[in-house]
Amino acid sequence: MTETVISSRTREVVIGFERPFVMIGERINPTGRKLLTEEMKAGDFSRVEADAVAQVAAGAHVLDVNAGIPLADEPALLTRAIKLVQEVTDVPLSIDSSIVEALEAAITVYDGKPLINSVTGEEEVMERVLPLVKRHGAAVVAISNDETGISEDPDVRFEVARRIVERAADHGIHHSDVVVDPLVMPIGAVGTAGQQVLHLVRRLREELRVNTTCGASNVSFGLPNRHVITGTFLSMAIGAGMTSAIMNPLHPEVKNAVMAADVLAGHDRDCMAWIGEHREMGALGAGISRRRGGRRRSAA
Amino acid sequence: MTETVISSRTREVVIGFERPFVMIGERINPTGRKLLTEEMKAGDFSRVEADAVAQVAAGAHVLDVNAGIPLADEPALLTRAIKLVQEVTDVPLSIDSSIVEALEAAITVYDGKPLINSVTGEEEVMERVLPLVKRHGAAVVAISNDETGISEDPDVRFEVARRIVERAADHGIHHSDVVVDPLVMPIGAVGTAGQQVLHLVRRLREELRVNTTCGASNVSFGLPNRHVITGTFLSMAIGAGMTSAIMNPLHPEVKNAVMAADVLAGHDRDCMAWIGEHREMGALGAGISRRRGGRRRSAA
Repeated sequence: MTETVISSRTREVVIGFERPFVMIGERINPTGRKLLTEEMKAGDFSRVEADAVAQVAAGAHVLDVNAGIPLADEPALLTRAIKLVQEVTDVPLSIDSSIVEALEAAITVYDGKPLINSVTGEEEVMERVLPLVKRHGAAVVAISNDETGISEDPDVRFEVARRIVERAADHGIHHSDVVVDPLVMPIGAVGTAGQQVLHLVRRLREELRVNTTCGASNVSFGLPNRHVITGTFLSMAIGAGMTSAIMNPLHPEVKNAVMAADVLAGHDRDCMAWIGEHREMGALGAGISRRRGGRRRSAA
Repeated sequence: MTETVISSRTREVVIGFERPFVMIGERINPTGRKLLTEEMKAGDFSRVEADAVAQVAAGAHVLDVNAGIPLADEPALLTRAIKLVQEVTDVPLSIDSSIVEALEAAITVYDGKPLINSVTGEEEVMERVLPLVKRHGAAVVAISNDETGISEDPDVRFEVARRIVERAADHGIHHSDVVVDPLVMPIGAVGTAGQQVLHLVRRLREELRVNTTCGASNVSFGLPNRHVITGTFLSMAIGAGMTSAIMNPLHPEVKNAVMAADVLAGHDRDCMAWIGEHREMGALGAGISRRRGGRRRSAA
């Protein structure tokens, strides 16, 4: 039973096998968001703050913060974003960059134990990111690609993940502080993408005993009614044992699927969270509300 | 790779490990439907016909037909229902009764290879139903309870299922003609109900190599926003390998979750069915529609 603890100054979040699924808000990311890109370059971070507040209000347990803008001063932008988000919310953060200098700068202004997003299986990246993770007592997202790219064979991706977990151990980082991202391809382009992830999540959990995460929205890229595909993917991944995802809690199809999957995985005791979220929907819930009235009130 | 073939006079449906999930319409069942009960007792089967047509229009591949009304002449009612449903639709039927005389009467008016719903692990039931299944060359739903009731331990339920499959073999019925129902409890009452089913579906598939089904709606009994719970349950069950369910295709939350799970399980090649169902939703699907235009048109 592996538990990954991350924290802000005042709040702790645990990603774990027997815990409710951890929703990591994906919105603070200029990739593909032209307006946000231009605003951030111009020094206007009001949308970053608004996105932070809205995602937490929608139920995000953690926020991913990315400032990846080509040719911009990413260390400065990421540092500023991390500072501001900490001022407007109290959830732990995932510090997201492929530039080690940006991770290094941002981590120094972070108050708590962050999730560093990410390290890959590339030799140079491992040797630069893992010491940083160790030095700051952080947790880290391990992405299962290496110098050869992303393998289409999930078992090759598993071996890359194993290599990162072993290398992290060499650096004194416990496997409970490594959260593996098995990499989710768009199902519209790679028909086996879903099966690959379910297979990998089971292996990662049973053999490496690590928590898992992914960028969930990618799975539905290019498809109509895509939020249903994303939500359904997440519920299947939760059934296979996935414990967190970088996702958009503002889409009800996605959030409801995650909450329902928590009920069905036995991670929402007495359906408390589900009933709390949906109790205004009334009559259909009356049977269980009445039967469990006493316990429900006392725990609410 | 187990395949269960059932048929109507003109149409064949295959329940199989590598096939799209088979939706068996649940609506033709007077249990809990007061109006339908009264109408059927009075000899008015217009609602049965309407429910048959509506479910097939909504995508049901098979229809379950149940005429279980206390103190009524169930063999006569079920026989009439089976006759009428065959007149208004051409999908294969699941003949559903706990009364062997009703199954026996109805099967004689059925044109094709039906699914007999059901046999349990009770000694007397097995020895009456299995010879009937064999004699008529039918397939059968095996429910994993016995004289001692329904065990809360999924591994005990697994052993009941194994006993039925072995007894069926003694009667000359191949395991591909036995579709096991692992029994789905309401998650609001039994918090482990979801995990039990996922565990059982995997074991049934890997160890007994049988197809599986269930009465899906039961899982969400008493909960608010219950169709999302049912749909999410089905997607997780599909992820674990379930191959059919008795369900209501008229609820979009349920049907969409099943269709999305088929996409993610790799059972909807090139997302054809998904895109066909949702293409009117427009712009978001344009990328893939355009790229695959040629193939899509030729297969549509």
